[in-house]
Amino acid sequence: MNLFAKTALASFLAAAVAVAALPASAQQAKPEDLLKLRQGLMQAVKSQWVPIAAFSQGKADLPANAAEMAANLSLLAKLAPIGWAKGTESLPNSATKPEAFGAKAGQFADGWKALETEAAKLADAAKVGPDAVKAQAANVGKLCKGCHEELKKD
Amino acid sequence: MNLFAKTALASFLAAAVAVAALPASAQQAKPEDLLKLRQGLMQAVKSQWVPIAAFSQGKADLPANAAEMAANLSLLAKLAPIGWAKGTESLPNSATKPEAFGAKAGQFADGWKALETEAAKLADAAKVGPDAVKAQAANVGKLCKGCHEELKKD
Repeated sequence: MNLFAKTALASFLAAAVAVAALPASAQQAKPEDLLKLRQGLMQAVKSQWVPIAAFSQGKADLPANAAEMAANLSLLAKLAPIGWAKGTESLPNSATKPEAFGAKAGQFADGWKALETEAAKLADAAKVGPDAVKAQAANVGKLCKGCHEELKKD
Repeated sequence: MNLFAKTALASFLAAAVAVAALPASAQQAKPEDLLKLRQGLMQAVKSQWVPIAAFSQGKADLPANAAEMAANLSLLAKLAPIGWAKGTESLPNSATKPEAFGAKAGQFADGWKALETEAAKLADAAKVGPDAVKAQAANVGKLCKGCHEELKKD
């Protein structure tokens, strides 16, 4: 076997081992795991937003890492649509209204894009100072609230 | 009230409304929600990796959006440490070994950074072609496997 073939075989075997650790069924995600994915992403969003929201409401000090949290929030907004991918339209126990996959799917996608943008501005604001954070946190909060009212079940 | 005061008040009220939607207890995340966050991020990682891993093992076609999935995987690796933040060392039912917060915390953090880098290379490989994906998927798979063996409970 020449060097190229050996390298290719080694790569293939390493990949095969890595995948072998996953049961075959993992390649078709279970509904409960897809719901866990979605809800976990929302918990991640919440974890990066709540401390800044609490500050903007006068309930807490500005977190020292507010810029990092807002940047994380922006990345999470970019990734969040993974949680509502094709095939997740009818997950049992989901809090998402059916419209998010139908008539309001475009509005939903635009909402995440807007959050990505506004959270990035929030990260910039955190480098300016507390007043800038408060002003921009209001814009972020409006996006959260608006989308929850439209697309989240009570 | 002058314009500045009105604007400031409007901003404050909008932010207050957004936070008011969260119960006060949400500002102290519950252990079960922190576990949901962690497990949801791992599900998200899995959702973006498994289709590429299956391809690299010859079990599936190369996904048309492999480059996007690998880029998502890189961003998720960047964000993943949120799931193991300070205060999450002893979550009930967690699959993480205590060492991940102790003697091996540095190794764990380095592992996520390595995954961020190698998954970004996987996204580049997806723009080159199937053979490049297979070769780089082996490197990503080794990182998954190595970290699970070291830091995940059986």
